Amino acid sequence: MIYIMVKFNVKNPSGFPEFAPAAENLRQQWVQIISDVFKKYGFISITTPLVEREENLLGKGGNAKEMYALKRVHDDTNGDSGNALRFDHTVPLALYVARHFNDLTFPFKRSVIGPVFRGERAQKGRFRQFDQCDIDIIGNEKLDIKNDALVIAVIVEIFKKLNIGDFKVRINNRKIFNFLDEQSTEVINVIDDLEKIGLEKVTENLLALGLGQSVVDEVLELLNQGSLETLQDSEGKTELQQLLDALKSMGVDENCYQIDTSIARGLDYYTGTVYETQMMGHPEFGSVCSGGRYDDLASVFTNKNLPGVGISIGLTRLFSQCLDVGIIMPEKSSPTEVLLIAADQEALPRLLELGAELRNSGIVAENYLENKKLVKQFDYADKLKIPYCVVMGERELAQNVVQVKNMNTGEQKTVNISECIKVFR
Amino acid sequence: MIYIMVKFNVKNPSGFPEFAPAAENLRQQWVQIISDVFKKYGFISITTPLVEREENLLGKGGNAKEMYALKRVHDDTNGDSGNALRFDHTVPLALYVARHFNDLTFPFKRSVIGPVFRGERAQKGRFRQFDQCDIDIIGNEKLDIKNDALVIAVIVEIFKKLNIGDFKVRINNRKIFNFLDEQSTEVINVIDDLEKIGLEKVTENLLALGLGQSVVDEVLELLNQGSLETLQDSEGKTELQQLLDALKSMGVDENCYQIDTSIARGLDYYTGTVYETQMMGHPEFGSVCSGGRYDDLASVFTNKNLPGVGISIGLTRLFSQCLDVGIIMPEKSSPTEVLLIAADQEALPRLLELGAELRNSGIVAENYLENKKLVKQFDYADKLKIPYCVVMGERELAQNVVQVKNMNTGEQKTVNISECIKVFR
Repeated sequence: MIYIMVKFNVKNPSGFPEFAPAAENLRQQWVQIISDVFKKYGFISITTPLVEREENLLGKGGNAKEMYALKRVHDDTNGDSGNALRFDHTVPLALYVARHFNDLTFPFKRSVIGPVFRGERAQKGRFRQFDQCDIDIIGNEKLDIKNDALVIAVIVEIFKKLNIGDFKVRINNRKIFNFLDEQSTEVINVIDDLEKIGLEKVTENLLALGLGQSVVDEVLELLNQGSLETLQDSEGKTELQQLLDALKSMGVDENCYQIDTSIARGLDYYTGTVYETQMMGHPEFGSVCSGGRYDDLASVFTNKNLPGVGISIGLTRLFSQCLDVGIIMPEKSSPTEVLLIAADQEALPRLLELGAELRNSGIVAENYLENKKLVKQFDYADKLKIPYCVVMGERELAQNVVQVKNMNTGEQKTVNISECIKVFR
Repeated sequence: MIYIMVKFNVKNPSGFPEFAPAAENLRQQWVQIISDVFKKYGFISITTPLVEREENLLGKGGNAKEMYALKRVHDDTNGDSGNALRFDHTVPLALYVARHFNDLTFPFKRSVIGPVFRGERAQKGRFRQFDQCDIDIIGNEKLDIKNDALVIAVIVEIFKKLNIGDFKVRINNRKIFNFLDEQSTEVINVIDDLEKIGLEKVTENLLALGLGQSVVDEVLELLNQGSLETLQDSEGKTELQQLLDALKSMGVDENCYQIDTSIARGLDYYTGTVYETQMMGHPEFGSVCSGGRYDDLASVFTNKNLPGVGISIGLTRLFSQCLDVGIIMPEKSSPTEVLLIAADQEALPRLLELGAELRNSGIVAENYLENKKLVKQFDYADKLKIPYCVVMGERELAQNVVQVKNMNTGEQKTVNISECIKVFR
């Protein structure tokens, strides 16, 4: 007896996920929901190359240690490289705006959904290839604060439609720290760790920055504000108020967002509004959707002054977290609504015709084409959870009828072939 | 006066295309058309990682010279590499089937749309990153020849819907060369060059294979067959006849396909039916959609016998060819149907409310949020080809009305705000 060895390790490379058909179907429904909402608000969907010049990626915040460069296989000269895989959608956006500046109308509202790559240590919930869904609004020279509210309206609508539980978009504005002058960035970086290390340690770290006790107290009080009213007047407070006013005008559900002066977001990039989004029942997910306002999208690539505001949903991570904890359950992989089954092969040509007719009237219809026993054919419908089967044998062919079987109830009835389309409409 | 230098070369890397918004919008419409038709026939849409183990890619036909390996930027140890970018959708399909075998129902009808990578010399119409749209039907042990017809039905429907001119799917079956026994592969490779080098040179090359004059004559006569009737009986002829019968039953437009015994397709991979597709007015495009039947999808990855049939549309290439020769003309980039414009900033909150109401009734509505003059706001609508503007100033606010302007005709009328949604429905 000869055993055939499987010759290759077929496992997908660590950190590069793929999903079985039913889960993938669900994932694609998410993508559809997200892109439909982006579109509904007038965002222009663009696609940028997965590959950019390494120097451009590194020149705008890219972490060399996590970046994947491209080189030709078995080419030690490194061939035409100098290119690397994108690690986010923001650098490609900056490049896109620089490249197509004259084709764009500002404010430029762009959406993008697609994979980005980071050579992180692969672990549960951390991927090396993962989809991000981003929107950004880019102004030419100026951009009104109401755009910062619009972005929240979009996100709230998406998370409601994903229907994966209660969530809250937490909103802050970095300008409330402006009174700290040049130390504000350091302070924000310390505050950013609040949820990780706790208030006591944050206080310690603030003192370690050399801030006086009274300033530290001021910062701590700031973090403790539940509402805008008690906040000291500042440009940050004014902007937050304008943002809240706009959210109210747009009728965004007030249960889905809140001002939270303790969120900071670590990136130096942000200059005003910042967002994080938590799933209320799942703090362990971390922020599932983050972003903020920045003054300068692309000054390294153009001499234009391009302020913007954007937000990003970490799709692959959130999706796989929701799968893991059972918030979502993959069910069906096939789009087919009707499977046409030949009880005798003589009936197959007529069923091919009927299949085409059904499809032409907008029904997703599939012919079973293999010459197999009825039970095998029904088994295919069962496994793919196809809701209806249309069965025809010699007898039905002669009588110009079909058997229509509801696969959920088991109910079966004889239908005139000319009525068949009506039945499914 | 100080000139600010643009510090980086922002051009996209050669061979990695991106499109300006209007063209990209058109491209996405193509993707939608293609994926809708795939779905209509019951194909299961999957997504595979962009990255696979190098050995798996090389083990199944990958050309090392054209393959992009991944390495960490500035990591001379080559880090966690051993992975490379996929160069087609077939190897990932074979791996997918091997990985998820027990989650799949056979025949497995899968579709995929997405980028693949080849490190070719970049030139007009040749890309290093390009989208391919593939369908394949994979049988477990066996797969009926009618599947080979189904694939054509799908392609014909797609090309009709793309509406880019007359096309013809040319169909052959390699088994008609079976009488040549072990030389059939060599002969097919020679024939494959027919369109490039002409009949005379092909004859020469056939003789050079050591075939006798009578065999060469037989091959040449075979290439000259306009219909099945005159073809000698063979398994290939029988399969072609069955395929034509199935196409007829499905009502596929006979103007859109033909038997052509001169097409061969160079890849050793194919074992039966082969397809190529030409745009009738544009022979210079080459084959825009090719594929065929193969006996063995994945024997290097599994010990299963998995015959299949598949076809692939070279989306990026075809799209950019159509753009170049003017078959398609990008028009509109924005999905927005209605732009809401504030003639006075006092009206903006009410317009934000109205914008949300419009969106909730399914209209793509966008508020202009910048505090700019009316003419600038209309300019935004003009440039984005937004068909309607809704304008409100202090006066309209007081009277609870809006001005609705048709941007194509210039026509403007006053509408009660409560009637506004009805107007657009």
